Amino acid sequence: MITVKKAITIINNTKFKISSEYIKTEESLGRVTSSNIKSGIDNPSFDMSAMDGYAVSDNPINRTFKIVGKSFAGKPLNRKLYKGEAIRVFTGSKIPDNTKAVIIQENVQKINKYLIFHKNNKIEDGNFIRKKGFDFKKNKIILKKNKVINARDVGLLVSANSEKIKVYKKPTVSLIASGDELIVNNSQKKEGSVYASSMLMLESLIKLSNASCNNKSIVKDNKKKIINELIKSTKSDVIITTGGVSVGDRDLIRSSLDEIGFEEKFWRVKMRPGKPLLFGLLKGKPVFSLPGNPVSSYVCFYLFVKPFLNKLLNIESKTTTIKAKLSKNLNIINQRETYLRGFYFYKKDEVMVKPLPNQDSSLLKALANSNCLIKLPISKEPRKKNNTVEIIIISNLC
Amino acid sequence: MITVKKAITIINNTKFKISSEYIKTEESLGRVTSSNIKSGIDNPSFDMSAMDGYAVSDNPINRTFKIVGKSFAGKPLNRKLYKGEAIRVFTGSKIPDNTKAVIIQENVQKINKYLIFHKNNKIEDGNFIRKKGFDFKKNKIILKKNKVINARDVGLLVSANSEKIKVYKKPTVSLIASGDELIVNNSQKKEGSVYASSMLMLESLIKLSNASCNNKSIVKDNKKKIINELIKSTKSDVIITTGGVSVGDRDLIRSSLDEIGFEEKFWRVKMRPGKPLLFGLLKGKPVFSLPGNPVSSYVCFYLFVKPFLNKLLNIESKTTTIKAKLSKNLNIINQRETYLRGFYFYKKDEVMVKPLPNQDSSLLKALANSNCLIKLPISKEPRKKNNTVEIIIISNLC
Repeated sequence: MITVKKAITIINNTKFKISSEYIKTEESLGRVTSSNIKSGIDNPSFDMSAMDGYAVSDNPINRTFKIVGKSFAGKPLNRKLYKGEAIRVFTGSKIPDNTKAVIIQENVQKINKYLIFHKNNKIEDGNFIRKKGFDFKKNKIILKKNKVINARDVGLLVSANSEKIKVYKKPTVSLIASGDELIVNNSQKKEGSVYASSMLMLESLIKLSNASCNNKSIVKDNKKKIINELIKSTKSDVIITTGGVSVGDRDLIRSSLDEIGFEEKFWRVKMRPGKPLLFGLLKGKPVFSLPGNPVSSYVCFYLFVKPFLNKLLNIESKTTTIKAKLSKNLNIINQRETYLRGFYFYKKDEVMVKPLPNQDSSLLKALANSNCLIKLPISKEPRKKNNTVEIIIISNLC
Repeated sequence: MITVKKAITIINNTKFKISSEYIKTEESLGRVTSSNIKSGIDNPSFDMSAMDGYAVSDNPINRTFKIVGKSFAGKPLNRKLYKGEAIRVFTGSKIPDNTKAVIIQENVQKINKYLIFHKNNKIEDGNFIRKKGFDFKKNKIILKKNKVINARDVGLLVSANSEKIKVYKKPTVSLIASGDELIVNNSQKKEGSVYASSMLMLESLIKLSNASCNNKSIVKDNKKKIINELIKSTKSDVIITTGGVSVGDRDLIRSSLDEIGFEEKFWRVKMRPGKPLLFGLLKGKPVFSLPGNPVSSYVCFYLFVKPFLNKLLNIESKTTTIKAKLSKNLNIINQRETYLRGFYFYKKDEVMVKPLPNQDSSLLKALANSNCLIKLPISKEPRKKNNTVEIIIISNLC
């Protein structure tokens, strides 16, 4: 058995690369850039009016300008401005050559359709003009490599004329749930059946980790069938199994993997829940064999698999660990690092955490009702109310 | 012009309901329950062994039990236990009738294939048995109404035999970008063209607000075309327009809406950016007309539309507002409530915020580089370095 820390180090040292692909910018939300992205154009790509008003070339003659045309957004007027002339412009319209500034419409008075009166005396150079390249210049980096693309980035890419962008492919994951008892729908139900809740929970967690589950299956406790499924699953980037990885007669995952050239990196971690966790490489593909109980598989996914999937995309795993005070005594003397389901809350300005009453690793309801994991290092002493503990806040939708 | 606060009140008072639909549980991640969900079964649905071991009915005879059979997970043995007998069980297997407890395999010694030796003396009633309904009971509420479904909830629903669940339909949104200058791809490019960045940014924001953009279009500055598009868009639950809503000659959104029976709730908000915001009902459907500049449309979406879309699903909008210290002087005297793009960071334990240098509402790069909005109430005094301001933290992927 190895420690959690050692297990994480071994996983982190496993080199595995994800290749890139080009996708449409409008479908890039949440994807991760795999190279610096440069702008294809200056933005704006021409000198543009920032307001509705009048473009002028110089100071007025007798405080008036002669209106000589209109330049609309998208329909520019290709005429130069001369002294004493003004051209009507609108927000976003191209301003004429020779423009000194734009006077906003609030500051003029129309005498008739040819003449305007300038209320202020001073016309400041460049006023209300968005110069070509004001936002960003052509060939400059607008998004760095290894950036998760947000909604604003999508807008930025569109404005930079990036119709397609280079991103990491989503890691594909094969998910195998093993157990004769497992079913996914009622038509399969017989005595002793259990719904494959871990499998479908893990599928959701995979989706939330910037990866896609391209294959999920339930296999019976039968070595030949398990081996077949494992071999098929090596077409994916990552393989996750759940169940059948402990020491029982029916725990066939490890021995099945062994028969097909599995390169085991570790088996069993000094933690609770999650002790049976197995990790290694099968035909070069990372395999995480998680326990079958929902809580155990959840904790193992959250601590080991999620950070690994994020690391494949070179992004940080958003695990938030903070300190909190126990809201009650915790009579646990734990010889393994322990992750309890907890519920944290604020009492005045302090973070408190309540360990949920029943911590059995089969209890999905307690897992669903929690909002954090309480991390307890090995200890010979029970923890008292108000002792400080570390909690891992469960992130959005996980 | 009305205040931001008043605008939010008016929007909140607009009653609009979203109907429900049944969807597959395995596709329910991120959706919102529209009724309490009860479990269809007890979970576990039978008394189950929590470990690999031996089910026994009573104390041993001469410290031995006779092994009379095996009960596998998914393949139960239908035989009752009698005194002095043991049945081999595994994690998840149904335990036989008359079982007092399960002795874990670590605590027994096999003498031969029929006999086991019990290392400990005491057999505690119910030990290592997960009783029927231990996790939750049939017909009990497992998920409450108006809950965003996370990965653990998916597992919980599966274990409760909910193959389909009732959720709110995703609000559908029609998105209209108006402006002669707008293009989405290079083939349309001509002098004075501008890429429709606001439209595609807003589409991403809609997706992030538990809604779906079922139609997006660019319309020219032509009243007939705008009216046609607006009428078509009333098939959606919500209509969002961007651009053409200010006071210029080419700002045709408001006058177009007026011609087709628009029930205006407000136009123009005392804020910066975002002043031209228009809100009302068109054929009973909420219409948000946002400015065209990317930053203005972003701020308006974030402050007004996102909370509205969340409210349709009866969920809280996750807008996090905290206090921060300005990292430098801010020489702004603002007569309207102002939302600056900022970047917050920690300096020791303090939250600091740096206003980005250029705040023009056309600047997408500054918007993309920010991580918060600095909210400045109307003030006749400039703010000094280290003054405390409120910041709105931009949430994940927005």
